[in-house]
Amino acid sequence: MSDAVSIIAAKRDGHILTKRQIDWVIDGFTRGTVADEQMSALAMAIVWRGLDRRELSDWTAAMIDSGSRMDFSDIARPTVDKHSTGGVGDKITLPLAPLVAACGAAVPQLSGRGLGHTGGTLDKLESIAGWRADLSAEEIHSILADSAVGAVVCAAGADLAPADKRLYALRDVTGTVESIPLIASSIMSKKIAEGTSGLVLDVKVGAGAFMKNIDDARELATAMVALGSDAGVRTVALLTAMDAPLGMTAGNALEVEESLEVLSGGGHADIVELTITLARTMLTVAGIEGIDPADKLADGSAMDRWRAMVAAQGGDPDAPLPVAKESRTVTAEQDGFITELDAMAVGVAAWRLGAGRERQGEPVQAGAGVRLHAKPGDRVVAGQQLATLYTDTPEKFDYATEAIDAAWGISDSAPVRSPIVLDRVGR
Amino acid sequence: MSDAVSIIAAKRDGHILTKRQIDWVIDGFTRGTVADEQMSALAMAIVWRGLDRRELSDWTAAMIDSGSRMDFSDIARPTVDKHSTGGVGDKITLPLAPLVAACGAAVPQLSGRGLGHTGGTLDKLESIAGWRADLSAEEIHSILADSAVGAVVCAAGADLAPADKRLYALRDVTGTVESIPLIASSIMSKKIAEGTSGLVLDVKVGAGAFMKNIDDARELATAMVALGSDAGVRTVALLTAMDAPLGMTAGNALEVEESLEVLSGGGHADIVELTITLARTMLTVAGIEGIDPADKLADGSAMDRWRAMVAAQGGDPDAPLPVAKESRTVTAEQDGFITELDAMAVGVAAWRLGAGRERQGEPVQAGAGVRLHAKPGDRVVAGQQLATLYTDTPEKFDYATEAIDAAWGISDSAPVRSPIVLDRVGR
Repeated sequence: MSDAVSIIAAKRDGHILTKRQIDWVIDGFTRGTVADEQMSALAMAIVWRGLDRRELSDWTAAMIDSGSRMDFSDIARPTVDKHSTGGVGDKITLPLAPLVAACGAAVPQLSGRGLGHTGGTLDKLESIAGWRADLSAEEIHSILADSAVGAVVCAAGADLAPADKRLYALRDVTGTVESIPLIASSIMSKKIAEGTSGLVLDVKVGAGAFMKNIDDARELATAMVALGSDAGVRTVALLTAMDAPLGMTAGNALEVEESLEVLSGGGHADIVELTITLARTMLTVAGIEGIDPADKLADGSAMDRWRAMVAAQGGDPDAPLPVAKESRTVTAEQDGFITELDAMAVGVAAWRLGAGRERQGEPVQAGAGVRLHAKPGDRVVAGQQLATLYTDTPEKFDYATEAIDAAWGISDSAPVRSPIVLDRVGR
Repeated sequence: MSDAVSIIAAKRDGHILTKRQIDWVIDGFTRGTVADEQMSALAMAIVWRGLDRRELSDWTAAMIDSGSRMDFSDIARPTVDKHSTGGVGDKITLPLAPLVAACGAAVPQLSGRGLGHTGGTLDKLESIAGWRADLSAEEIHSILADSAVGAVVCAAGADLAPADKRLYALRDVTGTVESIPLIASSIMSKKIAEGTSGLVLDVKVGAGAFMKNIDDARELATAMVALGSDAGVRTVALLTAMDAPLGMTAGNALEVEESLEVLSGGGHADIVELTITLARTMLTVAGIEGIDPADKLADGSAMDRWRAMVAAQGGDPDAPLPVAKESRTVTAEQDGFITELDAMAVGVAAWRLGAGRERQGEPVQAGAGVRLHAKPGDRVVAGQQLATLYTDTPEKFDYATEAIDAAWGISDSAPVRSPIVLDRVGR
């Protein structure tokens, strides 16, 4: 019997793995001596049996040790990052990173590309002419150290928790994504390896999120906060609502445009509220006191940072954003209050219009997506425009319309307004 | 989402798979479009969630359909086979196949090679000079059809349930062997594809068997009997004890020698009893009445069949059996009754002496193994020989002795004699 089989069998039978077993199996997976079929069987056994806090901490440490860890300790300002578990219309990173930098923190934000109905932060920024997601470790460091910029949003390098990258690709094709410890470890290994000293997690809850109920979301948040603390990263998690999309747009250039509204002091109430709440939490985590991020939006300094951040990565902040070739509107079929707007359906519509990809490596359309004209709580009359769909490939309209037509609930009585921030985990 | 992921996720979440899903995933696995890492994750989900009777029947049918099915329906005599789930010293196939052929049935016995502490029937027969395990489908058919032979023990062809062969190799390295439905399906897909119309299963129970307790063994037997019935193969299972080794030998040529004793009308009581019980059950399943296999051992006709069977596969029944170069004896440390003889320890000792292999494809020593001089219930005195160890590689003696020294229990009071056949499942 090889060691891999005995480790898989131990987890299958509900035993606790030792640190030595975890280090051995992840090291072997990284070096290729533990085969994909063995790791996927182990992942399924973990979906079944879970990992306790000590195992999870060791598992995450082994993932980090599979690559190198960035170090920003020579930067005078405190480093703090935000991670969202993903939602429809979640463009918050775009205004948030320059806003928090404008308040005095250094913000290293290593991000990903989108897959399926959830958009990717890098895809959104790539709709800006000239902007580059791929930076060297030296470029990241020098942008962060530059006190006139201080925020960087870029792709994670290949050497950042490479075992996690391989495991994630494997989980994606083997039905083993749905495990709270594996999700927590995947997120936190990358964030800890990224070298930030503070972290705020935005854990989405609701029909449009991966976590459908608040108990699962709280369990995930608690696991991630514990992993951050164990690794010396001060970590706070907010549980936030993801039933309806965030803001009024879903799509790459459309979301950049909406982010610019927020940075100009405008924007829909929900994204402004979430941006400011996350910024305040990040400042607390970073130990920065006496600065109100709302002031930095109002006085234009957050917008200045945005322009500096985009320019530092080769982008032209003055270039016009791409616009889709074709559009189609969706109208209300009856009078009433909008009581429901299914985030998932809007995300699927944007994806079908070309804003997202089906497989890794596929291109996305910069201009494609959905612009909402009404949200839950708004009163509408029959025939009023509810949304505009955008795409360069108009043959997709019918397929996208099919998704978004089913997204709306309209009723005679106004819905109760529900809060965006539902709970907080961590100090 | 690919179909493979949705099928894995369905089983992971405890759902029942449809026949279409099962056919799709096994066909894809056979053709290589369902990857090993997907199949191993699914196997672990099946270890966790199980398969219900309908799923198991469909799973087994899909395994059979991955290759071709043999057909002996043109042979006038009824076909009947026996399968044992594996035990130490289990050479029963050797006397049983010619015995049942001598009683008027045709016995197509497709067998395997040994791995680890359990010996393989083909390895045992290969200690006979000239004997060939690899026969073409035509050779198998013509030996079976020959009323002067009527029994064939040979290797399963590559086209017999090839998906099961691949899945078994995968389960072996991914900790997914321990699943009653997967074990049942693996055994029965091969036996059904083999084309026998009747089948007797010898399900071993005890410390030296894969099934350690009678409830698990009964569950496995029940699942296999149901699969046989669903496929039109009349199937009966006996649950038999595997605490001590069967008979007095474990090793390849040593077990052939002991089988010849049984065929000559001699042999230790336990293997004679089990051989005759299995033969009677096989005759019942085959619908052959009025013939007592004990008579066929006594009158020499079973031995005649053995000689014909060996010769039909190129073997020389008169050639002397190989003998190991070196031997060492193990003696009793105290007076008393033998109360215990751990089959697993004897199997491990024989394996370490060279009778078995660690990896598929390795050669085995024909003469290596263990000859017992005393068994549970026997009275011994200190210094009396308990066993002789044989090997061509005497540097293995210490390692083998270490295993077998711990195998014996000796006490002042005689043990209660326990039966060999514990239960029966099926008509």
